[in-house]
Amino acid sequence: MAKMTPRTLSGFMELLPAPQQQMERIMETLRHTYSLYGFTPLDTPVIESSEVLLAKAGGETEKQIYRFQKGDSDLSLRFDLTVPLAKYVALHYNDLTFPFRRYQIGKVYRGERAQRGRFREFYQADIDIIGDGKLSIINEAEIPAIIYKTFSTLGLKRFQIRVNNRKILNGFYAMLGLTEKSADVMRTVDKLDKIGPEKVKALLVEEFAVSESDADEILKFISITGDNNAVLSALEGYLGRNEIFDQGLEELKTVVRYLGDFGVPAENFAVDLTIARGLDYYTGTVYETTLLDHPEIGSVCSGGRYDNLAEFYTDRQLPGAGISIGLTRLFYVLGEQGMLNPELPTSPADVLILPMTEDLSAAISLATKLRESGIRTQLHCEQKKFKQKVSYADKLSIPYVIFLGEDEINAGIVACKEMKTGEQTKLNVEETIARIQAGLAELEKGAVILE
Amino acid sequence: MAKMTPRTLSGFMELLPAPQQQMERIMETLRHTYSLYGFTPLDTPVIESSEVLLAKAGGETEKQIYRFQKGDSDLSLRFDLTVPLAKYVALHYNDLTFPFRRYQIGKVYRGERAQRGRFREFYQADIDIIGDGKLSIINEAEIPAIIYKTFSTLGLKRFQIRVNNRKILNGFYAMLGLTEKSADVMRTVDKLDKIGPEKVKALLVEEFAVSESDADEILKFISITGDNNAVLSALEGYLGRNEIFDQGLEELKTVVRYLGDFGVPAENFAVDLTIARGLDYYTGTVYETTLLDHPEIGSVCSGGRYDNLAEFYTDRQLPGAGISIGLTRLFYVLGEQGMLNPELPTSPADVLILPMTEDLSAAISLATKLRESGIRTQLHCEQKKFKQKVSYADKLSIPYVIFLGEDEINAGIVACKEMKTGEQTKLNVEETIARIQAGLAELEKGAVILE
Repeated sequence: MAKMTPRTLSGFMELLPAPQQQMERIMETLRHTYSLYGFTPLDTPVIESSEVLLAKAGGETEKQIYRFQKGDSDLSLRFDLTVPLAKYVALHYNDLTFPFRRYQIGKVYRGERAQRGRFREFYQADIDIIGDGKLSIINEAEIPAIIYKTFSTLGLKRFQIRVNNRKILNGFYAMLGLTEKSADVMRTVDKLDKIGPEKVKALLVEEFAVSESDADEILKFISITGDNNAVLSALEGYLGRNEIFDQGLEELKTVVRYLGDFGVPAENFAVDLTIARGLDYYTGTVYETTLLDHPEIGSVCSGGRYDNLAEFYTDRQLPGAGISIGLTRLFYVLGEQGMLNPELPTSPADVLILPMTEDLSAAISLATKLRESGIRTQLHCEQKKFKQKVSYADKLSIPYVIFLGEDEINAGIVACKEMKTGEQTKLNVEETIARIQAGLAELEKGAVILE
Repeated sequence: MAKMTPRTLSGFMELLPAPQQQMERIMETLRHTYSLYGFTPLDTPVIESSEVLLAKAGGETEKQIYRFQKGDSDLSLRFDLTVPLAKYVALHYNDLTFPFRRYQIGKVYRGERAQRGRFREFYQADIDIIGDGKLSIINEAEIPAIIYKTFSTLGLKRFQIRVNNRKILNGFYAMLGLTEKSADVMRTVDKLDKIGPEKVKALLVEEFAVSESDADEILKFISITGDNNAVLSALEGYLGRNEIFDQGLEELKTVVRYLGDFGVPAENFAVDLTIARGLDYYTGTVYETTLLDHPEIGSVCSGGRYDNLAEFYTDRQLPGAGISIGLTRLFYVLGEQGMLNPELPTSPADVLILPMTEDLSAAISLATKLRESGIRTQLHCEQKKFKQKVSYADKLSIPYVIFLGEDEINAGIVACKEMKTGEQTKLNVEETIARIQAGLAELEKGAVILE
């Protein structure tokens, strides 16, 4: 028969079993952490009606959409988890209780130009808190805690949650009478790291007709750095000149004030006035998270406060705050950087049983007992040579192999070999289970990401 | 602004938060159970190249495919998890170790006619064991154990795993010289429950030119029922007439023989000669699982042994055995039947903290401690009346509410109310945590499905 050469589409991540296990661990950590903060899991369709999904979209986004006709229906694959959330909240408004806290980890689709490390199908892991009419600033203050808990649980220490408030930026530009130009100005200021202050100034003056003195003010403003208190003090100097600014500073102070109570160490947090987040969507606190030793990766967790989640679907004012982790890209980058802990078990099983008798009753009963004790167990009953069976355990990094022959069965004991050390014990079933459980607990001790 | 009316496509399940929590529990149970039997999680793209995905498909299946063009690419959404597995195994053959045991829980797409309880996007939860060239019968014997463990962990008792072997059927029809007609005959025999033995016989004779005596033989054969030993004894009577039959009976006896060792109670298992599974794909043991009190639901977990997983992609012989649960439909039916345990927690949090002071430090510190103890915690800091805040906990069925006022903070105690009983304790933080943890353990005790 003629064969079709199997292939996976480029831009679509398909992992081998060992890295997939690491990915699963990360997802499990996210689910667990998000749950601790009172977020409920949500799952929405991958396909939506195009007119619903694209009510807002336009330009670049629309070009990337996977959009197609099925029968009479114009359908699209979701390109993020925010628009489906907006639809969900507007549609199910009467059945929800607000503030509504949800997390969603799901695949989204963007037909971007294929290139290394860019994916067309990728997981986003989002949390959002949606208020009905109003939403307390405390929710914005809590988000750094969730980011901290998530990344520290994953094993990272050297990361920084950078926080700003759009009201401070908007208020500041209003002071200078630059509100109209603020989007252009912020986009230019964003290039600071790349092109330096002088070129930024030149661009502001030449391209956007900002006065020399205003450009100097802007550069002075965004060069406010230091520890949180130093930055807040410097910002106090601008108080009383613009209401929005004052409000933003008050909010930022609240966020900073409760960091310690929320369990966020000072070294993992920084007020950073250069953070704006491209989207004009955000209206209050904004977040970016960077790995200190890998600034080239960019932000691994971003988000912020917005005033109107579902304005395309409902007249209700639904303000919210949320963050998103681009999980597939993060996983890819961690792999590239060799940051995935190779010591953590990635085997499909904890124990491989090699029956050495014709009758398999004893081996199967033992497997059943191990499984009842929560130990992931495989029986190897294929017609292979002994050496091949041991090599199977080796290749899959199965930590324990049990040999069960006539002698062991008659003596009521189990010969169990720890593959890493070669150490073999001959103990009864209960003792063997206890030994394996202790060993597995030891193996599970590390975190999934190494720095 | 003109609003777009939000809607979700028909045939696409989108759950409210409480049922979603129940769905998550079921998925977590499946992941855990499948892992215990040494299956590794896999995740493959939802989108595949049409020529790869549809290498085998045709007829009905092809009509249901979500297929579309993106740029120059002809793409399709997967319609099951088996074809992607075949592709995966053929593509990554050199990187896999065999037997390869994987589970996958993922969404698949079929553009079926919309009707109640039928879904166009639905989860399948599959396990498969793939051998390289050969695969021991013990894998087929193990599958009833996995089905039993899965459904009993979910809370079901009154279900039956029905097992047959295609070799017995094929061998039997070969004895009668009906091999050519066996597909038609089996399809007709499949109608036994619906139309009764006389009409089946009439159909066999009139439509498929089966002789009267052969039709009687067939009806006699498929009416072999009783406990496993009775059925096996009756089958012994056919031994020696066809090699395939003899082989099938030997396999079936092996499957039955080890049931007890695999922990499957006799009452949850039955040899059933009427089980054939429509697909000509299966070549050995076949499985169906029915809920005894809800036969109308049909099989909730089906599968079997096949000889050639990836014949469209590779010349290698890759036999396997697997089962699939149609999770979305199962969940829908369980909901319809009122079989989802309403006693299990579906709240987004275990505890709601209501701060009663201006300064939130104490409340936030307490939330941090609870979260560090694994307790899912929300802070309610919105500007609402006290009554509204308590009603928030009520609506979401949050089991514990903590009131934290000046008095409690000064006294170093926590006022914690169990919402169900109304019982309020005033204990220190550690004691409160212990009390909540004990209460939650109690709440978690039930299974997700009720009979």
